[in-house]
Amino acid sequence: MATFSYAQRFDGLSGNAIREIFKLLASPNIISFAGGNPSPSSFEPEVIAGLTAEVMQKNGPQILQYGATEGYAPLRESAAAFLKGSGVIADPADILPVSGSLQAMDLLCKALINPGDTILVENPTFLGCLHTMKLYQAHIMPIPTDHDGAIPASLEENIEKYHPKFVYLIPTFQNPSGNTLSLARRKEIADIAARTQTLIVEDDPYRDLRYEGEALPAIYSYAHDGYVMYLGSFSKLISPGLRVGLAVGDAGLIRKMTVGKQGADVHTCNLTQAIVDAYLRRGLLPAHLQSVCASYRLQRDAMIDGFEAFPKGVTHTNPEGGLFVWVTLPEHMDTVLLMDKAVARNVAYVPGTHFFCDGTGKNTMRLNFSMSTPEKIQEGMKILAQLLHDEC
Amino acid sequence: MATFSYAQRFDGLSGNAIREIFKLLASPNIISFAGGNPSPSSFEPEVIAGLTAEVMQKNGPQILQYGATEGYAPLRESAAAFLKGSGVIADPADILPVSGSLQAMDLLCKALINPGDTILVENPTFLGCLHTMKLYQAHIMPIPTDHDGAIPASLEENIEKYHPKFVYLIPTFQNPSGNTLSLARRKEIADIAARTQTLIVEDDPYRDLRYEGEALPAIYSYAHDGYVMYLGSFSKLISPGLRVGLAVGDAGLIRKMTVGKQGADVHTCNLTQAIVDAYLRRGLLPAHLQSVCASYRLQRDAMIDGFEAFPKGVTHTNPEGGLFVWVTLPEHMDTVLLMDKAVARNVAYVPGTHFFCDGTGKNTMRLNFSMSTPEKIQEGMKILAQLLHDEC
Repeated sequence: MATFSYAQRFDGLSGNAIREIFKLLASPNIISFAGGNPSPSSFEPEVIAGLTAEVMQKNGPQILQYGATEGYAPLRESAAAFLKGSGVIADPADILPVSGSLQAMDLLCKALINPGDTILVENPTFLGCLHTMKLYQAHIMPIPTDHDGAIPASLEENIEKYHPKFVYLIPTFQNPSGNTLSLARRKEIADIAARTQTLIVEDDPYRDLRYEGEALPAIYSYAHDGYVMYLGSFSKLISPGLRVGLAVGDAGLIRKMTVGKQGADVHTCNLTQAIVDAYLRRGLLPAHLQSVCASYRLQRDAMIDGFEAFPKGVTHTNPEGGLFVWVTLPEHMDTVLLMDKAVARNVAYVPGTHFFCDGTGKNTMRLNFSMSTPEKIQEGMKILAQLLHDEC
Repeated sequence: MATFSYAQRFDGLSGNAIREIFKLLASPNIISFAGGNPSPSSFEPEVIAGLTAEVMQKNGPQILQYGATEGYAPLRESAAAFLKGSGVIADPADILPVSGSLQAMDLLCKALINPGDTILVENPTFLGCLHTMKLYQAHIMPIPTDHDGAIPASLEENIEKYHPKFVYLIPTFQNPSGNTLSLARRKEIADIAARTQTLIVEDDPYRDLRYEGEALPAIYSYAHDGYVMYLGSFSKLISPGLRVGLAVGDAGLIRKMTVGKQGADVHTCNLTQAIVDAYLRRGLLPAHLQSVCASYRLQRDAMIDGFEAFPKGVTHTNPEGGLFVWVTLPEHMDTVLLMDKAVARNVAYVPGTHFFCDGTGKNTMRLNFSMSTPEKIQEGMKILAQLLHDEC
């Protein structure tokens, strides 16, 4: 058998915890609150097939040929129009289509991170990005947050103390907490970024999945001088399997990421870029979102209602959108240990500790409501409630 | 304006030279021998649209959902069957679909390369991979080659002297030289890999573009103990715009690359994996290749004929397949300086020095014949011949 000496960036690193958990969930009997996947019923295979026929007929040879690393030019234009809805006003030249928005984090780290460089993150935060950052041997430090998101004064203190290469935030329906950064803080944080000349990376894949309340402008909309980078994604809006996301920001930084992308995958798949472009240009998104949000709202409500049967001492967030509810159990509980018992009762979740950069959060869990019907959610929440009554 | 402190991996690095050259070639009047693109007339947009309709109807919701980082399971099976034609016998579990085969090089470097680690390469070699290796701060060293490819005895000496993390070879219709590693050397090099416990990376995107002579088995087919990794690509066979390639090799190394891929793009686009899978399963490839190769053969012949008018002292390779002919001018010539004059006469090529890891090869150029008709090739070769007569 071959033996290889692997690179130091893998030292102490295991696979992305969620992607490992998914493999355990093949059983069709399980009620899974574990994923972060869009509902399978939200997909439109016939629409995708129709748009493919359209773009192949219109522009087939160009789409099937090598493309520019900078992205499919029509998509950069339609994406610029799409982003205006979030308050993100950008020139098509400042928009880099990427192979899913996680690739934007990979390219950002490639552009900016030397081993040992600091990145500040919400704690908990999206574990996929933590995995990417670890592969660049970043020094990942937590910043204080509350139910309104990152706390500006503490953020500024941490920036001054640790001089991070960037600060990673998911301001809207945060993954995993479900919390949303308040309007006032968005402006304040954009000001801090400019004042401290520190890049804020605003990852915003859930903003269009809002079930109540008023949409808030992106932090990017308050940015000065290019110190905010905005990451958009079509994974939760159209399809994650197509792998199309967007990075928007300072032209110099986008250029560096583009040179990095030349060495990563040459360019994002032209066909899927063209499909997303046609989807946006045909104006299909608003009606689709309306239908998706109507379903997700019922699913969220079913999950929130289910907490009534939970034991005292269990708290949870009340997200106005997104895909996740965050649960905190009494201090002495350990959701990693509880997981086997939950799976034995045919319910799954993600233990919250995987989302913490510092290994804390043993008594937390993330629940997803987009993958089950309201009825299944009721059933799963009853099972979880009973399990917690038995174990608390 | 924002200023950022970029990571050291970009020190001294400019963009991939070819992708920069492409931007200069937008003029429709230019006869371009510069690209490495398949012929636009080889693409089958209607077939791709039809296969998309088929896979969306059959398996739409699964394809549009997040997929496994390990790849779309049906493609791993059909790819295993496809690879047998190259003498690559592999279990589907040892095959990792990637977002174009350049991503395999990115993931290999991620898995194996610490800054300063040595990679041995043919000199000249594919500049896209050189760019990727540089982004991992590899120490890139040339190995001696002749018209039969890498010279085994010299390769072994270099392995023992420099202890490379791996050796990168393009054994069939090499890019840029057009040379093919002989049968005897393939077996010898597989033996050297096992004896020295050194990984050989066999990049093989052109092998099915053969216009004369007998197909040779892959180095991989002679491998022992997992010391050869095979990279396959559908870019030159079906479409580069779909971004689907393959890495095949040792299970432990494939696993490490998969963990790296989790942090790079989560998974390769499901839709394009499914399209390639359906293309292979429908048995469309043999007839398509027959037609493509018939055209490319005429184009190659037109180019080779054109050398008759070139000045004495200019030599060129005579490839049996692939997309490129390699030209060596008299020692005192500089093809970088010549490029402006060529473009002024409406002909373009890639200066050969970009393919050398050590900055040599100033008097060489790579000519591609797949992007022009035989008539245009004749015309372009006449222009180049005249230019060289004027400048030699």
